[in-house]
Parts: sequence; C-alpha cells; structure tokens
Amino acid sequence: MSEYRAPLKDMEFVLNHVAEIGKILELNVFGEIDEELVSAILDESAKFTSEVLAPLNQVGDQHGSTCRESVVSTPPGWKEAYQQFIEAGWNGLSFDPEYGGQGLPWLIATSVQEMWHSSNMSFGLCPLLTQGAIRALESHGSENHKATYMSKLISGEWAGTMNLTEAHAGSDLATIRTRAAAEGDHYRITGQKIFITYGEHDLTENIIHFVLARAEDSPEGVRGISLFIVPKYLVNEDGAAGERNDLRCVSLEHKLGIHASPTAVMSYGDNGGAIGYLMGEKNCGLQYMFTMMNLARHAVGVEGLAVAERAYQQAVSYAKQRVQGSVVGTKERVAIINHPDVKRMLMTMKSLTEAMRCVAYYTSGIFDLAARHPDQKVREQNAAILGLLIPVVKGWCAEMGNEVAYVGVQVHGGMGYIEETGAAQYLRDVRITPIYEGTTGIQANDLIGRKILRSKGEEISKLIELIERTCSDSIREKLTCNIFCALDRALVELKHVTRWVLENGEKDPRITAAASVGYLHVLSLTVAGWLMAIAAIECIKLLEEGNSDTEFLNAKLTTVRYFATHIMPRVKAHADGMVDSSEIALELTENQF
Amino acid sequence: MSEYRAPLKDMEFVLNHVAEIGKILELNVFGEIDEELVSAILDESAKFTSEVLAPLNQVGDQHGSTCRESVVSTPPGWKEAYQQFIEAGWNGLSFDPEYGGQGLPWLIATSVQEMWHSSNMSFGLCPLLTQGAIRALESHGSENHKATYMSKLISGEWAGTMNLTEAHAGSDLATIRTRAAAEGDHYRITGQKIFITYGEHDLTENIIHFVLARAEDSPEGVRGISLFIVPKYLVNEDGAAGERNDLRCVSLEHKLGIHASPTAVMSYGDNGGAIGYLMGEKNCGLQYMFTMMNLARHAVGVEGLAVAERAYQQAVSYAKQRVQGSVVGTKERVAIINHPDVKRMLMTMKSLTEAMRCVAYYTSGIFDLAARHPDQKVREQNAAILGLLIPVVKGWCAEMGNEVAYVGVQVHGGMGYIEETGAAQYLRDVRITPIYEGTTGIQANDLIGRKILRSKGEEISKLIELIERTCSDSIREKLTCNIFCALDRALVELKHVTRWVLENGEKDPRITAAASVGYLHVLSLTVAGWLMAIAAIECIKLLEEGNSDTEFLNAKLTTVRYFATHIMPRVKAHADGMVDSSEIALELTENQF
Repeated sequence: MSEYRAPLKDMEFVLNHVAEIGKILELNVFGEIDEELVSAILDESAKFTSEVLAPLNQVGDQHGSTCRESVVSTPPGWKEAYQQFIEAGWNGLSFDPEYGGQGLPWLIATSVQEMWHSSNMSFGLCPLLTQGAIRALESHGSENHKATYMSKLISGEWAGTMNLTEAHAGSDLATIRTRAAAEGDHYRITGQKIFITYGEHDLTENIIHFVLARAEDSPEGVRGISLFIVPKYLVNEDGAAGERNDLRCVSLEHKLGIHASPTAVMSYGDNGGAIGYLMGEKNCGLQYMFTMMNLARHAVGVEGLAVAERAYQQAVSYAKQRVQGSVVGTKERVAIINHPDVKRMLMTMKSLTEAMRCVAYYTSGIFDLAARHPDQKVREQNAAILGLLIPVVKGWCAEMGNEVAYVGVQVHGGMGYIEETGAAQYLRDVRITPIYEGTTGIQANDLIGRKILRSKGEEISKLIELIERTCSDSIREKLTCNIFCALDRALVELKHVTRWVLENGEKDPRITAAASVGYLHVLSLTVAGWLMAIAAIECIKLLEEGNSDTEFLNAKLTTVRYFATHIMPRVKAHADGMVDSSEIALELTENQF
Repeated sequence: MSEYRAPLKDMEFVLNHVAEIGKILELNVFGEIDEELVSAILDESAKFTSEVLAPLNQVGDQHGSTCRESVVSTPPGWKEAYQQFIEAGWNGLSFDPEYGGQGLPWLIATSVQEMWHSSNMSFGLCPLLTQGAIRALESHGSENHKATYMSKLISGEWAGTMNLTEAHAGSDLATIRTRAAAEGDHYRITGQKIFITYGEHDLTENIIHFVLARAEDSPEGVRGISLFIVPKYLVNEDGAAGERNDLRCVSLEHKLGIHASPTAVMSYGDNGGAIGYLMGEKNCGLQYMFTMMNLARHAVGVEGLAVAERAYQQAVSYAKQRVQGSVVGTKERVAIINHPDVKRMLMTMKSLTEAMRCVAYYTSGIFDLAARHPDQKVREQNAAILGLLIPVVKGWCAEMGNEVAYVGVQVHGGMGYIEETGAAQYLRDVRITPIYEGTTGIQANDLIGRKILRSKGEEISKLIELIERTCSDSIREKLTCNIFCALDRALVELKHVTRWVLENGEKDPRITAAASVGYLHVLSLTVAGWLMAIAAIECIKLLEEGNSDTEFLNAKLTTVRYFATHIMPRVKAHADGMVDSSEIALELTENQF
C-alpha cells in the first residue's frame, strides 16, 4: 500500500476558486479566520493523516475489529492514534466553541474529513458518527442534555452512534419495533438494532447511543417514532461516566470492507430495559433524523471522493514505477504510465476525483451559507440549492468513488487482485458508500420526489439559472470550445429530462421513480461539468494574472477538457434511457424474472 | 447465498436461435448429436452443477485453499466433488474421442462451462486450465507427448497448468528469465513463476505444467521463448506417475476473490533443475501460446457471463422475498422487486446477462465453424470474424460481469455488504476476469492493432455487412422501432469510429491506443445489440408459429427493448470520447499526475 499525501494544492484551489471560501470567511460569523489560517490547518491535517492514520489503514483491514463476549477491540495501534486525534482537537473542528469546538466552517471541515477518509476510512467513521450525534444534540437537545454530553462528544472523549436499522426495517423505518416505556424522568428501551457503526469499541470511555424507538403510547408508523439518548455508561452528577447501562454488543458483522469499523448488532434491555432519555418532542424522532441527514449524506459523499483520491494516488505511484513493455512504435521498455491506455485510465480517475471534489466542496460552501449567512433570504436561497445538491454529493460521489477504485485495481493488473497491494481494499471499503445513509436509489427518489416534484421544479430552475450564468460568461471565448460545448449540451438534456419528470411525475410516479437514478446522473454530471468549467475559467484568470504554477494550472485545464470530452457524454446516455423508455423497466411480472 | 439453477430455457433459446446450433450439428463432424441429446446433456449438467458444485461455492470462499510446506489443500468437500466431476466425464466434453473425450462442439461445452462458473468459479478454474493444456498438446504436442498425457488430462485424472508470468514479466513476456538447459532428451528448467492458477493442489494425482522458458542458446526477447512440459511427477514407462520432479509451490497469493482457486508462486529447479520436455519447435513458445489464447480468452468471457447470471439469480431471489416499504402511491408493504428502481436494476442485470450470453454463445458457434467446417473458405471466413469477436467476449463480458455483480450487491442494500449474504463474493470473484488472460486494455489493443489496422479493416467490414443484413430484414417492421433504431444508430457510430481508427492508427498509434478501450465498447455494444435484435426477431417468429411459451418470449422481447433503450445509448458516450478527443488523454506529463 502506497503512502498518502493530502492533495493540498488541488484542495486549496477548489476551496478558493470553486467553493469561494473567501465569501464565507468574510461573513465574519466563524471567528477570526483568514486564508492563511485555513492553509495552516490543512497543512497540519495533512501531516497528521499521512503520518498517523494512513499507516494504520492496511493493518486495520487485515486485523479488523473483533468482538469477544460483548467487548470490542479495535486493531493494534488504533487506540493510540485516536488519543492523538482528539488531543490535537481534530474531533471538534466545526462545532460550537461554547462547548470546546473550534467553530470552523463546514467547508474547512470537509477538506479535513476528506483527509481522514483518504488516509483511513474505517477510522474516520468513528468521528463521523460522533459528529452526527453532536448535530442532533445541537438542534434538538435540551440545555440539560447539552450540558451533559456536548463537551465530551466535541472533544472526542466520548463517541456517539446512530441506531436506526432493525433486521426488518432498513430503508423503511416506519416498522421499527424497539420500544420505550416511560419511567419517571426517563424511559426503558428494549429492542435489537443492526448495522450500528462503532456501536461498541475501545476508543473512548463512554459511547452515547442515539436510538430510534417507539414509546408505548405512540401510534404505529412513522409518526410514532421518537429519538432517545442511551449512554453506554450512565452519567453521574459530576459529569463522569458511571453505572453501566443495560445494553450490549451481540456481535459484529463480517463485511466486504471497512473491516476495522465495528458494525454491531446492539441489544437494548436484555435485563429489564436500558435507560434512555427522550430528546426533543415525542414522536418527532424521524423528523430529527431528517434534519441531520444532509450532513451525514454529504459526509458519505466525501468518503467516495476520499477513497477515490487514495486509489488514484496509489495507481499513479504504481504506474510510475512498474516497468512493462514498450510504447507503440518504440523499443525501449517503459514505466506503464507511458502506455496510452494506462494514461487514459489515470485521466479518468483524476478527472472524476477532481470533479467530485468540486461538487463536494461547493456544496459544503452552500451549506455554510444556508446555515450561517446573516441574511435570511440568502440562507433560504442556499438551503434550496443545498436540497438539490445533497443527493448529488451522496449519490454521485459514492458511485464515482466506486468507479475510480475499480479502475485503480485495473491499473495494477494482476497485482491489483492481490490483497497486499492495497488497491483492492479501496474497492471493498468504498462499496458501502452507495448503500448506507440511503442507497443511491433512495437519494434519487428524494431528489425527484422532494426536491423536483414537490415545488414543481422551482429550485432546479434556480440552479439551472446559475449554470446558465456561467455559460454566458464571456471568458468562455478564451477556452477551447469542448468544455462549454459539453456543458451546453448537458444543460439541454437536463432541461429536457426535468420537463419530462415534471410532466410525468404526477401522472405516474412509478415511471419517474424508475427513471430517478438516471436523472440523478444527468443532474450530477451537469453540476460537475459546470463546476469544472468554473475551475477552468479560474485557471485562465490565474494564468493571465501571471500565476507561476503553470504546471498545475495547465494540468487542471487538460483535466477539465478530459472530463468534458470523455465523461460528460454520459449525460446523454442516461437521458436517452429515461424519456419515453422508462416504463420498459417496469413491464415484466415477478414471474418473468 | 441462494441456490443456483441453470437458466436452461434461455441457454437453449440462445443456442438454437442465436448461435444456430442446428447449422453446426448438421455438419456431421461432431458425431451423432441432435438437439435432443444437447438438451439431455444440459439437463445433466444443470443437475450436477446445482447439486454438487454450487453448495461448495461459499465454503470455498470462506475456507480458501491453503499451503503448508509446499502442500496445497483445497477446501472441505472439493476432492470428492472433483472425483464426481471427472467420473461423470465432464472434463472431456469437447475433446478428441480418440483419447477418451466426447468430441462435442465448443458451443455445447460453452453452455456447460457457463454452469461450472456460475455454480462455482473457483472450482471451474481447475478444468479450465487443464483444457488449455489439452489444447496445447493437441496443436503442438508430439505423438509421444500425446500418448503420455492426453488421456489422463482429458479424463481429468491429471490436471494441467499454464506458467507464463514472472514477477517482472506480466503483460510483457519478452523479458522472461526462467531458463532451460538441454540435457539428453530433456531440459533442466530453473526459475520462478507467479500467478499460477491451480499450480499446486490435491485434486489430482499428477499436475502437468506447461512452462514458458528460455533455452540457453536462445536469443533474448519474444523470439527466444520455448514451451516446456514439466510434470509434477515424472511419468513412468507404464504411464503412471513416478518420481517427483524438482518443482514446488512456494506460497499462495492472498487474493480479493476466487479464494479456493490456489494461485501459486512456483519454483522450478531449486535442486538442480526440473526435468522438462520441449514442446514443438524451440523458440516458438509464445506463438503456441497465442494459438491457445482464443479459447482461454473466450473462457474468461464466459466466466464474466456466468458470475453475472449467478449474481442476477441471487438478486432476484432476494428482491422477491425482502419486504420493505410500499410502492409510490400505495400503502401496502411489498417485496422490493415491486419498487421501480429495484426493477430497473434487475432489468439492467438481466438484459446485460442475456446479451453476454448471446455474444459468448454466438462466438462459440463461430469457433466451431472456423475449426471444423468442411469447406476451407468457410473456415477462413469464420476465423476472421472470430478474431474480432474474441476480444469482445473476453473484454466486454468480463467488464459487464463486474457491472452486474456490482448492481447485484446494490439490490441487497446493507445485506449486500455482509459477506454471509454471498452477493459480495460474486463481486470479488469476477473482479479477476478483466485482468487475467490479458487485461481489457490488452484485448482492446489486440482488437485495434491486430484485428482492425493490420488488414486495413477488412474483417470489420465483413462483420458490419452481416449486421446490416439483419438490419434490412423486413421482419423489423413487426418489432417496436426502438430495437432497430438503437442498432441503426450504433452502426453509424461503429462505422464512424472505425473510419477514424483506420485513418489515425498509422499516423499516430498512441492516439488510437488511447481510444482502444472505447472502441472495444462501441464494437461490443453493437454486436450485443445486433444479436439481441436477432433474438427479438426469433421471438416474433416463434410467437407467430404459435409457440405456447408466451411468458418467456414476451419477457425476452421486453428485455431486448430494455437493452436497446437503456444500454445501447452508451455507444455514443464511448464514441464521443474518441474522435478528436483521444489525444487529451495523453497530454499530461508524468509529473502532472
């Protein structure tokens, strides 16, 4: 397995020129941060992740987390790394300074999290889940809850988990059976949860579980689900972890990848009921989950990007050192990076990865504006765009992360199939990203149902306007035509399929549902192509200003042209399958399969 | 892991109506076989593979083959299954009756082999390699060699292997270092080979290695490589296995998939040199390898098809029993097969798998005609088409097998990521198919370099003529327009990119090399679309004739329409990236990656 080096140059380029971090920093709501400090944070994070987390990635895969009599052990070296991680303050980057966080924009946290997941996705999942718990507390916790849990979760001394899934209730949470019985100021929780990421582990002294359950007097269905705080150890008056609660890890799943991230079956209430505290209002649990979902889904998209980056780095490194054959028309033996088809594969990996970074970072910027801009109208405008982009980041970056990891194995030839090489681990690890936090199908359904049809296309019209504004930028004259030609063509398709969705979604929602993943790809590719075009425009400007890093800027221009010519044509392939043909997908009866 | 049931109905439909087995059987060169006997063979094979091989697939994955002090043990139950396999005569299906084979067409063997690999790809690799050894002996072995090895290899009492790769010589065999020193009537072989499939195991009493090595007085480079027969146990005068030869398994690779198939590092001559016998002429080893390559590559394509079929069956089975959510617009909870996006995924799997079957079986038929047709001209015509179709079967079916397995995991949601479910094993197993026997890039290179440019497009013109003949069939009037519209459009693209390749291949072979995988996809999709259109035509004919299996025939028609509308649009996406844009893939310098 190759080393990991954070791609700082590209990260900063995208932060500054595509996600326009300057606009966020100048709001002055995130404390005293300037671009220099951002740069220093990224440097430190690059150092930490490459030196501490990256070397533990393969041992984590090979060793895995293990469970013996409900006690889970993480792989050798992980506890020490986690201690260093929290001591350096990485866990609390984007959280409330009142509880010890650093209050940085989500956009900066995104870059840092990309590094966690590139260096060690299994490790990164622990703080990722804690982050979800913190956001839940921030939004819906009482002052008392916040006082009890917030500081320890933000520091990372304690970890958090999300307990949603049950064996029969996956994408469909309406049928949850875990019960909560009121008892004084708390509830007694009984039931079994599956697929609980870091449900049990040895990295922290306490684990705070956020559990969806149904109170005894609540109705069946989605409107009867509440969210409970269920700590592994009950918290004493003095704030320290005290008595053990009635919950345990039954077993860990044996998974395709992310072996070091313990995926637990959790049992609550084997001995009378685990003590849990209702968070917010009763029966609002699912709604609370939805408010946290944007961040969680965005984070999973970032995992797709992150593993793609790592797979790309490893493929480049192998292609530069592996000598094999000679280039067509010559005799000298060369490193395989010189073979045209290998270069094409690397360009596919590179352009997809950089496009994902544009999409993920730009969306983080929108998130910060939607959350913190002083002007409510601006917040609302950005929130509308954010709603459209979250399924793009989650759905598309996860799928593309898989494509890049797949190509990464291919670059290695036979060595890619050998586990020691490391390329296969990325393929296995990243395979979870299009599944958890809502499958790609669920993202696409959300996009079409909630984000397009519900408002009759209002938000997508605004996004299309934004893209058209870039298309009419006079600077496009200075770029080779293929970048904007591809974007123009993609826009035509996007408008066409959007019209089709709006016209047919009400008539027969089954047909637009069958087309929804296609639609997700059309929108994602168009957004990616748009942001890559912006990147190209910025390169031209920087070159005109005399920026001396011509090697980087010219590489970026070529990468955008590659994306426009080799990736963007997929728009039409997806669009063609939708209009007038989607019903074909639904014709067969069960017996005919 | 679900059961496996051979898709006999579709297999026989493709055999009879797409690959036109009748035309092959009526040549009367394959003994007395009629369609009834073919059907009986397939029934028996279906029974054997589902009852004996399929149940060992998961245990094979979990247990793997293991190596202790050069002794390799296959997983529990495998030895017994192999005994049953050879006792039933499955090993010798398509081989010379003179040596105990059954002399059946390759087309029938293809169907049977699809079943091996669907039920248990790791198991199927053992006879696959033996098959390669038998073909080598058939084509280039002396009468003495044949007398010594043929019967035992055809019966399966002994197994065969292919030893090509060395650590520094993968796709580039010119640099092979394994040496052969002449000594009387034999040679002494010294060197190390890697990636040797079934290089050592406990299924047979002897293993006959076919080893590429350089004789001491041979030149460097590809023209100095010879092929040697190196038995694990030297063969006594009486034909039995005798003294142990100087070769051993050093270790087994730890691979992403096909865990039960032992991939060995083999050492020859640790104690003075392994005894090996020159096969055919000296320095012709690589050429001999090429003559066997068509079959081996075809067989790997069939693996892609086979694993796709298994993944599809498992996904359908899960989608029918997993109840989750309700269909848009209704309240009742349903099996997920009723969700539009799940149905779309299953249609993608089904249409790709059936298209692969058309491509693989049709090519097998061409192989039989090229090998055995009494008229030399017909043999030559078919050999030319075969040359074009081998990279299609190997390259495209391997890549699509991966796509189908990927979608199969997705249909399972979270359960797909859990190893016990079995869906992930297909993804891991099939990942080797675009790599071994020449990567997809190598296939594409072979296609463009040897099959298109060398003859200035003569063969591809003939293939295009064949496709155009189908397109002008008047029966197309009876089919919904989208099937032939998609094929017409694909043909336009294929002609366009072929012209571009012919015009640019001489000028700058690096640019067409960068476009070669795109070209492979354009050709493959067009051929697949063509054969699927033929399948649709045959369905119409059968329905008109009053065939009563309307459920199957109508499903096939819908599947072809899905393929035409949802898969065929990819042609243009691949073609767009090639013409006028391929050089972009080559622009960056090493430092810019």
